[in-house]
Amino acid sequence: MTTTGKQLFTTLESDGTLTVEIEEVTVADPTGNQVLVKMEAAPINPSDLAILTGAADFENAEYSPGKVVAKMPEPFNTGSKARHGQKLPAGNEGAGTVIATGDGDMAKALMGQRVACVPGNAYSEYCLADAAMCLPLGDNSSEDGASAFVNPMTALGFAENAKMDGQKAIVHTAAASNLGQMLVKICQEDDLELVNIVRKAEHVDLLKGLGAKHVVNSSDDDFMKQLRTAIDETDAFYGFDPIGGGQATDNVFKAMEQVAVGKMTEYSRYGSNQQKRMFIYGRLDMGPTILTPSYGFGWTLSGWLLTPFLANAGMETMVRMRQRVLENITTTFASSYKQKVTLEGMLEKGAITDYRQMKTGEKYLVTPHG
Amino acid sequence: MTTTGKQLFTTLESDGTLTVEIEEVTVADPTGNQVLVKMEAAPINPSDLAILTGAADFENAEYSPGKVVAKMPEPFNTGSKARHGQKLPAGNEGAGTVIATGDGDMAKALMGQRVACVPGNAYSEYCLADAAMCLPLGDNSSEDGASAFVNPMTALGFAENAKMDGQKAIVHTAAASNLGQMLVKICQEDDLELVNIVRKAEHVDLLKGLGAKHVVNSSDDDFMKQLRTAIDETDAFYGFDPIGGGQATDNVFKAMEQVAVGKMTEYSRYGSNQQKRMFIYGRLDMGPTILTPSYGFGWTLSGWLLTPFLANAGMETMVRMRQRVLENITTTFASSYKQKVTLEGMLEKGAITDYRQMKTGEKYLVTPHG
Repeated sequence: MTTTGKQLFTTLESDGTLTVEIEEVTVADPTGNQVLVKMEAAPINPSDLAILTGAADFENAEYSPGKVVAKMPEPFNTGSKARHGQKLPAGNEGAGTVIATGDGDMAKALMGQRVACVPGNAYSEYCLADAAMCLPLGDNSSEDGASAFVNPMTALGFAENAKMDGQKAIVHTAAASNLGQMLVKICQEDDLELVNIVRKAEHVDLLKGLGAKHVVNSSDDDFMKQLRTAIDETDAFYGFDPIGGGQATDNVFKAMEQVAVGKMTEYSRYGSNQQKRMFIYGRLDMGPTILTPSYGFGWTLSGWLLTPFLANAGMETMVRMRQRVLENITTTFASSYKQKVTLEGMLEKGAITDYRQMKTGEKYLVTPHG
Repeated sequence: MTTTGKQLFTTLESDGTLTVEIEEVTVADPTGNQVLVKMEAAPINPSDLAILTGAADFENAEYSPGKVVAKMPEPFNTGSKARHGQKLPAGNEGAGTVIATGDGDMAKALMGQRVACVPGNAYSEYCLADAAMCLPLGDNSSEDGASAFVNPMTALGFAENAKMDGQKAIVHTAAASNLGQMLVKICQEDDLELVNIVRKAEHVDLLKGLGAKHVVNSSDDDFMKQLRTAIDETDAFYGFDPIGGGQATDNVFKAMEQVAVGKMTEYSRYGSNQQKRMFIYGRLDMGPTILTPSYGFGWTLSGWLLTPFLANAGMETMVRMRQRVLENITTTFASSYKQKVTLEGMLEKGAITDYRQMKTGEKYLVTPHG
């Protein structure tokens, strides 16, 4: 059997020319515990955009059917040196139907089923995927299951990580995202306090509508006061930030320290003894992270990625997390999309310039077979 | 017995007026395991300057004998809100002679001895100190022992912390400092690799003269290349930065990641799997810390302070570290000073504007009794 189909590739040359195009490829037969999935739906997540569009200039790009050529500005081009000249697939996750399998038992058990998968080249008509990472979707549609991995496992990962570290409360920035909404529900289910930071009044309403207790608006004049109050009420000295650039994390550290200092009876030149912990798990703002010297030395900031977290958490935890996602795929872990596009549609100017803004609640879903 | 003597105080008012002055105070009698120390020598460390001078404007201050009044600019004044109106002592450490003790056995054993101590008000003629934290100096002078705590224990703390974390190599910035020179010797003794970053050719010579193998100069055009080479040769993905502000840590993370990526066989949009760890333990640069998005998500940055480290390391480790300091006080842990000043001399314009620059090798020593 020979399977051929369309696949998206993204190539950055050393001179900063970024070419994203759809090509016809032949897909190898699945072996061992591989499955061949006819991809029906794949989301465009912020983590996909890093490789798909990066910081390239799509305003002044050359568009033709199934192809776009754009310029990557400095310092981003030099910063991407490691990928220069490499033709890369894109699309972390998606869902579709298993149409062929390798000889492995895990793979054979999935034959004919609709599954969510993490092939790394989800912007394709056909993908090879690891059966161990596939989630059988049962009666759920591919659209329901397309985002079953990255956001649900990341949001669950935050709750798991917090519990592993003995925390009872979490701060979350850009909290009105699909992932943020999941985290609101997870924290309710797991009895974790959650301080949600959003930047629009409508997002406050959205999260309050989901039952969130603490939602603070960074656009309000008294934002820092709101944040201090919420941290004081929840004892949240631990949090996750998908913005990365600018002072989103800095503001949280400041508010945490001010709350902690307010509880001290004696001044210390070194600040409070309260350990403050933040994780940056995204780069919605590609600018540098700014940390001001205003919260002593009792803080730790790390990058956070799902894959090393799962590797560290172990197989048992991962299986438990996946089971929970499957059982709640249309409730706690439901995603919503602004727009569906085909593979070719992904590369049209209107679509790219829209989805690359990563606006809250405006996620795109790719349907490779139209 | 009533003991009276001069003591330095620093007071910041809410309007930003910083008053540093010498006052005559009555010292309470030592009780329990307290000792009364006639202070003979106390260093001015960067960690003292935070409270002594902060970011105040000493160019345009009002100077009178034993007193200086300066303005604290914004945002530093607001950032120091927690100390507004409080009259604070200064001087972490020093050395002198025990002239009275409490009833405790530890205290009584020190009567008449010369000791290094950590009273927190070392810029005084007389201090009460905790006997448990005193280091008997034997035949060593107070000048030899004045800096026996902060720098030696911090430098040893880095080596201990690295070993606890399973590391075999350390990166150190601003490495030509007194503390940096100690670290060079400690790492030689403990068989740890050390990458020293300095910013002057003469500092390269200084550290090479101590036997340092890897010294890179941030003022050289090929600094980043030098740094990558040193990291590649030592596998140092773990380091300490006393500069804090600017891109000192950012540059180290970048070089670490570039070395790690160079060893990868396949491109990953998320960067290398190499965990990179840095600690900021000082603020020689009071500007914000800048972290660029150029080394993926596999990094952790923390503040580092001696006291919580020691508390965490436990009493046995601390006793072992102190014993090592005492045995090598005039060799590995020797400090040198540019200038000796009296308490009044500390508050003269020439002295303040000189020592607050914290130049490498230009530390001041306060001799409260002249």
